Amino acid sequence: MDIPKDHPRYASLVTRERLAEFVRKGLVTPTGLISHGRGEAFDYMMGETSTDAALVAETVAAAYMLNAERPVVCVNGNAAALDAEKLIELAVATDSKIEVNIFHRTEKRMKLLTEYMRSCGAKNVLGMNPDARIQGLSSDRALCTKDGIYSSDVILVPIEDGDRAEALVKMGKVVIAIDLNPLSRTSRTATVSINDEMSRALGNVIEFVKELKNDENRRNKIISQFSNADNRKAAVEQICETLRSSV
Amino acid sequence: MDIPKDHPRYASLVTRERLAEFVRKGLVTPTGLISHGRGEAFDYMMGETSTDAALVAETVAAAYMLNAERPVVCVNGNAAALDAEKLIELAVATDSKIEVNIFHRTEKRMKLLTEYMRSCGAKNVLGMNPDARIQGLSSDRALCTKDGIYSSDVILVPIEDGDRAEALVKMGKVVIAIDLNPLSRTSRTATVSINDEMSRALGNVIEFVKELKNDENRRNKIISQFSNADNRKAAVEQICETLRSSV
Repeated sequence: MDIPKDHPRYASLVTRERLAEFVRKGLVTPTGLISHGRGEAFDYMMGETSTDAALVAETVAAAYMLNAERPVVCVNGNAAALDAEKLIELAVATDSKIEVNIFHRTEKRMKLLTEYMRSCGAKNVLGMNPDARIQGLSSDRALCTKDGIYSSDVILVPIEDGDRAEALVKMGKVVIAIDLNPLSRTSRTATVSINDEMSRALGNVIEFVKELKNDENRRNKIISQFSNADNRKAAVEQICETLRSSV
Repeated sequence: MDIPKDHPRYASLVTRERLAEFVRKGLVTPTGLISHGRGEAFDYMMGETSTDAALVAETVAAAYMLNAERPVVCVNGNAAALDAEKLIELAVATDSKIEVNIFHRTEKRMKLLTEYMRSCGAKNVLGMNPDARIQGLSSDRALCTKDGIYSSDVILVPIEDGDRAEALVKMGKVVIAIDLNPLSRTSRTATVSINDEMSRALGNVIEFVKELKNDENRRNKIISQFSNADNRKAAVEQICETLRSSV
């Protein structure tokens, strides 16, 4: 499909096309398109920009990732399709491991995603050979690696299922979720909920990582002053403002 | 796909899987999945329940359909996948014709959808052999039948494109839209905008049809007292209330 570069919704249409292409290639499930549509609605209601609340959460995410002993960046089909490069860039900047971890797990999709991440420049991609389980989850979506997710202390989950976010928190991990819906179970459960479009969110976190890299005191202050509940409330207020001004 | 039965959003996941299956079968387009996701987001924000505003619109819809001379229930891929049975039940209860009418029209999809509606119990399904056009629309999405959409006075359009909703209103028809987004162009344009999940909306309209079947005076009063603009505002207010109370 040919999308004119001057189309007002160029970026959004290009993203949709890439997702559809990834479905055809088998990296994204058809239901991944539904998740994307859901995200689009929330993004639209937040004015398709990083809200103040999102920027706060993104600063806290950067601080947690820099303070971590064993940070992990999780990757699923949608995340890879949306912006593999920025996921890798953040992992490099924070010395995080990358682990592919998908809800509808098949060996074929795991292999496709692992190869895709490698082709985008990821040096070491975990997930293909799971040797541990996320506690409290049934079925294959519990599968993970001992060296990666299982032993992580801080874990970034873009577009994560609520069940799994909850299980990871119960395991004692700091869970940083990127999820456009401030009311989702993932957002409610996570330690830090970034309610922002994934690509914008990652770009911002990468910038904040640069800012905070050599300032542990400031990082600790940022973390101690943060309330995820208050921040989600601010995100909701922003949505209501946009809705009321558009009706 | 195997969805774990202990997943708290099992029902919603099953609907998603059915839509994905309909994409594989060719009845729903991949774009339809993104639309469904957008709808899900709004449903979420309305608490996944029929709001007071939705119930008002559903009463008015029942009144209009009972008063109509030539009512038509439109069916597209998403609508058929979500709840063909209730679409048929409403058509029977209001003596409406059923017409398949899709945005991305191909003969194959038209045939698949027509056959699917028949397999679900629809007696007479229009749309396969168009002999008229919706005025003011270019391309194949204008195609319709003289006996159905073209000569209808009241038309129910679940999950309709904004362009076509506008064209139908311009033809002088009473357009009843089922669209979860109260800010969409379809919702802004329609005579009656039902901002509710399709299956719930249809169930409610069917109930109101039973209530109003023998009370023309009450139907006329309900219609004359209704303001769609005010009702959409109420829908937005309810979204904000739900958001605030859920955060």
